[in-house]
Amino acid sequence: MTKQTISVQLSTTKKQKPQTDQLEFGRIFTDHMFIMDYSVERGWHDPKIVPYQPIEMDPAAMVYHYGQSVFEGLKAYLSKEGKVLLFRPKKNIERLNQSNNRLCIPQVDPDTVLEGLKTLIQIDKEWIPTAEGTSLYIRPFIISTEPFLGVAPSKMYKLLIILSPVGSYYKEGIHPVKIAVESEFVRAVAGGTGTAKTAGNYAASLKAQEVAESLGFSQVLWLDGVERKYIEEVGSMNIFFKINDEIVTPALNGSILEGITRNSVIYLLRQWGYSVIEKKISIEELFAAYEAGQLEEAFGTGTAAVISPIGELMWKEHHLVINNGQTGKIAKQLYETITGIQKGAIQDSFDWTIEVDSIRL
Amino acid sequence: MTKQTISVQLSTTKKQKPQTDQLEFGRIFTDHMFIMDYSVERGWHDPKIVPYQPIEMDPAAMVYHYGQSVFEGLKAYLSKEGKVLLFRPKKNIERLNQSNNRLCIPQVDPDTVLEGLKTLIQIDKEWIPTAEGTSLYIRPFIISTEPFLGVAPSKMYKLLIILSPVGSYYKEGIHPVKIAVESEFVRAVAGGTGTAKTAGNYAASLKAQEVAESLGFSQVLWLDGVERKYIEEVGSMNIFFKINDEIVTPALNGSILEGITRNSVIYLLRQWGYSVIEKKISIEELFAAYEAGQLEEAFGTGTAAVISPIGELMWKEHHLVINNGQTGKIAKQLYETITGIQKGAIQDSFDWTIEVDSIRL
Ligand SMILES: Cc1ncc(COP(=O)(O)O)c(C=O)c1O
Ligand SMILES: Cc1ncc(COP(=O)(O)O)c(C=O)c1O
Repeated sequence: MTKQTISVQLSTTKKQKPQTDQLEFGRIFTDHMFIMDYSVERGWHDPKIVPYQPIEMDPAAMVYHYGQSVFEGLKAYLSKEGKVLLFRPKKNIERLNQSNNRLCIPQVDPDTVLEGLKTLIQIDKEWIPTAEGTSLYIRPFIISTEPFLGVAPSKMYKLLIILSPVGSYYKEGIHPVKIAVESEFVRAVAGGTGTAKTAGNYAASLKAQEVAESLGFSQVLWLDGVERKYIEEVGSMNIFFKINDEIVTPALNGSILEGITRNSVIYLLRQWGYSVIEKKISIEELFAAYEAGQLEEAFGTGTAAVISPIGELMWKEHHLVINNGQTGKIAKQLYETITGIQKGAIQDSFDWTIEVDSIRL
Repeated sequence: MTKQTISVQLSTTKKQKPQTDQLEFGRIFTDHMFIMDYSVERGWHDPKIVPYQPIEMDPAAMVYHYGQSVFEGLKAYLSKEGKVLLFRPKKNIERLNQSNNRLCIPQVDPDTVLEGLKTLIQIDKEWIPTAEGTSLYIRPFIISTEPFLGVAPSKMYKLLIILSPVGSYYKEGIHPVKIAVESEFVRAVAGGTGTAKTAGNYAASLKAQEVAESLGFSQVLWLDGVERKYIEEVGSMNIFFKINDEIVTPALNGSILEGITRNSVIYLLRQWGYSVIEKKISIEELFAAYEAGQLEEAFGTGTAAVISPIGELMWKEHHLVINNGQTGKIAKQLYETITGIQKGAIQDSFDWTIEVDSIRL
């Protein structure tokens, strides 16, 4: 695939930007968006930046009926020196193509998407918030648009990128969250779509989430769909435990999402000299470690929340209060290091950040 | 919930109707559609019939990202006497609400939806094709429309009904199809969304379907996601076997869809004196019956295809040729009876058909 030229149509009006202290997650969108179409005859074509606007689709468009869609989530930051930085964007585009593969969506050219993403951010640069905990959330997504009710891969798609200035993902900020272990509902199973970032996985998760929230928990911890005992991941985060001085996280088993934050966390922890073990870990095993006083920390990792310390886990009738319900040392150190690298304040020895260099329009 | 008044805005132009012998499944849509909105403040409101037209939505509309959507499928027929008949529509609306429940979508008022459906069909009545094997396919569906990227149930929805004149679902018509037993991919698992008619289930099925088609099979037969040995269902059909004079079909186990055709078939077969058993049935058990010469018939049941005889099943290296690859006696009898009842040509002793009586506009 060759990189395509992106056309740009600037908006004639500018929306008012939100107050930085009023930012929620994913409610406000910037002045422009990126859009690119796919047809069988022309492949992916006509990449362009246009004013943020509604999209018009036939009611028979396949995405409404058969959910053939994938998405990504990453963030842009403004450094103190005024540089716009992206965190590992190539990983997201790589994962987008992996999701495409599982969902029978044609592969995208990574360079065109990265170029589109950079151009869009450059244009809407003034929307990047700078207050503590804020950033510009980037949402690339692909939807199937062919007007057809047969169950088959669509022959037409749209790829869009939209931008949203965001505050902390959890109302609690980087304070510890309470999480409920889910025993009734299942998110994904090996052979299913759990490793892909596709719409249906999130639709499937809402019911359990709703129940957990009504009981005062902010997310659920999913167990595997087969034996209902191995720990998988949280709603939109992978999970880590510090047990007896080792860091343990569920292995990539064919049903959990391979988080980019998860990957970064493993690199950092190993650089710091920790032993990190990716393995099958059962909820009973975790509970036994807790009972033995060996469960020292637990935290989730994901783009939206970065690091989210877990203060309490509820499993059946058990309430596991971890690290006295306080943010653990490792979670704090990881949060500060990753957000520091993301904002260009801490030396990036892994070459994770990419600068959105000035693009001439 | 109380039934609401449906407003009607007729189209000023009429599209050309297709040739009856050129009908595919779900490619052509009629002149009008039904649409109704939901907001937290107003509940479901403003039910109306408008000209068939594209819908405009914010690119952040939740359905594109988190796939919160459900749908139904049923058919309208024109009897010889010119009556417009619907087959068990209340069952579909009941199932729509069951799907809504699983997907955290607010319940709809069944009477309003049924009224909308009848009014719409009455208006587009001339679109009902009459040739053998044709009908007017009805697709009610609900999509989440709130522009928000948090993973949570949407606070806004649209319910639409669109109509499509259709021919036979399978290119083969009511001729026997070849089906491949799927050993790698999984459609659904207990605790997941398999019992709901929601978009993500179909997105998850495409990959296996694509592989099967490339090998010359028209659909896959899914096995359970836990032990990977119990028979579940076909892409958009439930499945029945005649084994040793008994009719066997997988029990409703929490991961297969409760088909309305399945339910009708069970009633008819019992009325005809057959013993119908709903049970857990493993693929090994089926293969053993085949080897013993006891697998006499196999067929799928679903709204789109009605009854679809299975001439060959492939499982690993085994090719099970059933009834010499011919349509079986029971499949034929069921097809003729059900389509006969649907078209008002055969006495409907179960009160399954509802007449779309003339509605004054
Ligand atoms: C299901 C799921 N697991 C884990 C993650 C974490 O992945 P990442 O670190 O790439 O954001 C996400 C999302 O972002 C997710 O949706
Ligand atoms: C997964 C699945 N199973 C079974 C069926 C058959 O259900 P029904 O007979 O109600 O059409 C359908 C669809 O229509 C389906 O999508």
